[in-house]
Amino acid sequence: MSDEFDAVVERVRKRVEPDDDERERLDAVADELRERASAAIDDLPVDADVVLVGSTARDTWLAGDRDIDLFVPFPPDIDREDLESYGLDVGHAVLPAGHEEYAEHPYVKGTYNGFDVDLVPCYAVADATAIQSAVDRTPFHTEYFRSRIDPALAGEVRVAKQFLTGIGVYGSDLRTRGFSGYLTELLVCQYGGFRAFVEDGEADLAFTDPLVVIDPTDPERNVAAVCSAEAVAHLQHDARDLLADPREGLFFPTEPDPVGAEAVCEAFERRGTTPVAVRFDAPDIVDDQLYPQLDRSLEGVTSELDRRGFDVLRAATWADESGVLFAELEVAERPAIERHEGPPVHVREHAEGFYEAYADGDPEDGTYGPFLDGNRYVVERPREFETAVGFLESDALFDVALGAHVESALESGYDVLAGEKVSELAEAFGVELASYLDPRP
Amino acid sequence: MSDEFDAVVERVRKRVEPDDDERERLDAVADELRERASAAIDDLPVDADVVLVGSTARDTWLAGDRDIDLFVPFPPDIDREDLESYGLDVGHAVLPAGHEEYAEHPYVKGTYNGFDVDLVPCYAVADATAIQSAVDRTPFHTEYFRSRIDPALAGEVRVAKQFLTGIGVYGSDLRTRGFSGYLTELLVCQYGGFRAFVEDGEADLAFTDPLVVIDPTDPERNVAAVCSAEAVAHLQHDARDLLADPREGLFFPTEPDPVGAEAVCEAFERRGTTPVAVRFDAPDIVDDQLYPQLDRSLEGVTSELDRRGFDVLRAATWADESGVLFAELEVAERPAIERHEGPPVHVREHAEGFYEAYADGDPEDGTYGPFLDGNRYVVERPREFETAVGFLESDALFDVALGAHVESALESGYDVLAGEKVSELAEAFGVELASYLDPRP
Repeated sequence: MSDEFDAVVERVRKRVEPDDDERERLDAVADELRERASAAIDDLPVDADVVLVGSTARDTWLAGDRDIDLFVPFPPDIDREDLESYGLDVGHAVLPAGHEEYAEHPYVKGTYNGFDVDLVPCYAVADATAIQSAVDRTPFHTEYFRSRIDPALAGEVRVAKQFLTGIGVYGSDLRTRGFSGYLTELLVCQYGGFRAFVEDGEADLAFTDPLVVIDPTDPERNVAAVCSAEAVAHLQHDARDLLADPREGLFFPTEPDPVGAEAVCEAFERRGTTPVAVRFDAPDIVDDQLYPQLDRSLEGVTSELDRRGFDVLRAATWADESGVLFAELEVAERPAIERHEGPPVHVREHAEGFYEAYADGDPEDGTYGPFLDGNRYVVERPREFETAVGFLESDALFDVALGAHVESALESGYDVLAGEKVSELAEAFGVELASYLDPRP
Repeated sequence: MSDEFDAVVERVRKRVEPDDDERERLDAVADELRERASAAIDDLPVDADVVLVGSTARDTWLAGDRDIDLFVPFPPDIDREDLESYGLDVGHAVLPAGHEEYAEHPYVKGTYNGFDVDLVPCYAVADATAIQSAVDRTPFHTEYFRSRIDPALAGEVRVAKQFLTGIGVYGSDLRTRGFSGYLTELLVCQYGGFRAFVEDGEADLAFTDPLVVIDPTDPERNVAAVCSAEAVAHLQHDARDLLADPREGLFFPTEPDPVGAEAVCEAFERRGTTPVAVRFDAPDIVDDQLYPQLDRSLEGVTSELDRRGFDVLRAATWADESGVLFAELEVAERPAIERHEGPPVHVREHAEGFYEAYADGDPEDGTYGPFLDGNRYVVERPREFETAVGFLESDALFDVALGAHVESALESGYDVLAGEKVSELAEAFGVELASYLDPRP
């Protein structure tokens, strides 16, 4: 097994290592960008540096990645407004076709000679514990690794990044909630290589929930704060799998074939469940806003479906131009009535109030009782929604906790798909449905 | 209101008071029985007394009741076996057509001149705390009330007994689990009359759950031990009702008209539920055995129906020649699959065992996953029973806690009725179904 593991890792290492040609091209473009930035800084009333950060600066990028992150550290005594306006000036000068995005403060993102470039202003603070803005930390991370990552270890880092990418947990964006590049580098450094990372890391990480990895440049900060328990569990599972059966496929998985509408119908028919979906125009917000809102909205809707007795077996949310909240129900329909428990008879005031409120109810109108069950009054009364679709199509949908932009999007209108109609989703989400219907860790 | 209450009580008092004719007849028959018993005792090698006990002895029986309880206290130093054999000798001599029943020990029950007679041997102990058998207490209860119940209070007791009878909670048998005659007498004595019993008792009893009433002849004993929380709640509810709207109808309720098969179908259709019933030959045991066993069996079956996802809305058990366990379900059908949660991935040994157990599962065979939900493995696997009927018709029914005799009866065969088929029950249980479908406190 040992030989096979090493052989697999060696093949992966080669596949993800940038060749000389790629390095030269990157260096050339980075130099050009740096020069353009320096020229723009010369036009400002303050001086500033230009620093290449991220995996391209640390030689840990994966072959084919085309991301360049340039940071512009300004003197820490300038105003926030000045920092932002100078930063944007430089950004637009360097990337004339770029557009502004917003993290903790605005920055310019654009393409340049085929590379995706972020040009981000920050404060040139004395050390990472003195940051004025979250991005001020980033140059310290690059600095930290300058003496710690040699070319051999950089190769190990690349293999680890590819592994985390392959198993779907690479990235600290709020959709993935996985392992950031910096976290990966820290872990591979800490274990001394990819093999120790999967062998020992699998067991070590097992008992830290949530995962805590102290930032060596700022001991107050947990580098793994955004990493979910599920991402850690994925790593554990796939680390065991890789050790037991080393193979390149885990590093470079193939996407499942999209499933067609007919197969979707057949699958839910075979499962005997009732699929329902709420489909709406996806709000025009960045992914780091969109996916947390979709998750929150899905949680709100599925909790309410459960509370109303439609028992959600599994659920998912997907987005492209449309946003979809999808739930697979165990129960398609509830009775016309529901049980409603009143107070114990001996809690006199409440008990009398409850009894009187329902005493004139009539089975013909769907109210049964009040009657006694143990020492409590109970009544059976008409249920608000007998089907999940009835609930989803009603205003009651807006009483659940929804992401703010998702709520606005739903207010502009939405479709409820149920039963065979959900197969329409195969057109846009065939791959997602394929994974849903054959789920793996 | 006060006048109306008193007027109602006065009318009830007259209806339930035995007239002179009835008293004379009872006295004559009781004397005759006593003489027959004394003659039989003369043939035994020991001496014994003959004592009239119960409500006929205390003048608290309701007009039309035809129960005579005669106790034969033997010297406390004779063997249990001798007590039993002498007791049966006397019983059979007094009631030649009688049959043996068994409480704590055997006794003879029979009819005599139109009266239902129990002839019960007991020990003539010095006081009720020295009893050797539960029935030894009974003569002390009669003795206790000799100086405490005068004819006026006896009238109040009769009204109370009729009220408890009317609202369905009179009797300490294990079907009713209500107020025994002795308990009723104690409470009416304590409060000094029927009106105070309902006025003050309604509030007092409210805060004792379970109800505790000390036996004045044996302070170790709770006279209300068998009285259920539901019986107390019934009394509270109906006491309030009687005070708010005094009427004889509460004392002498009319049985609902039996419901027909067609109306049963319509009712469950309107409720939108799925009724199911298990029907079997009722085991040939006394009611005090039968009903607790039916209750236990119903609890076992409904818990399991709930656990399997068929969500019981309400349930009931009925018996005549057939025993019936009836449950009304909110959910008729569950999917072909069920969610099965495994251990967290970091609990290595269990997690690996779980994963391996299901890793070869195939959606085509109804197994989906294992996949990750949070940090746990989860699998969806074929469900054992998709319908309640499937479960009820299977051997799995015998895995639930059933009463012993009910279990034997089911082993000899049973029918499962579901949906419209339950309307067959209207033939034997039309009144019970009428109450079920229009339940009141």
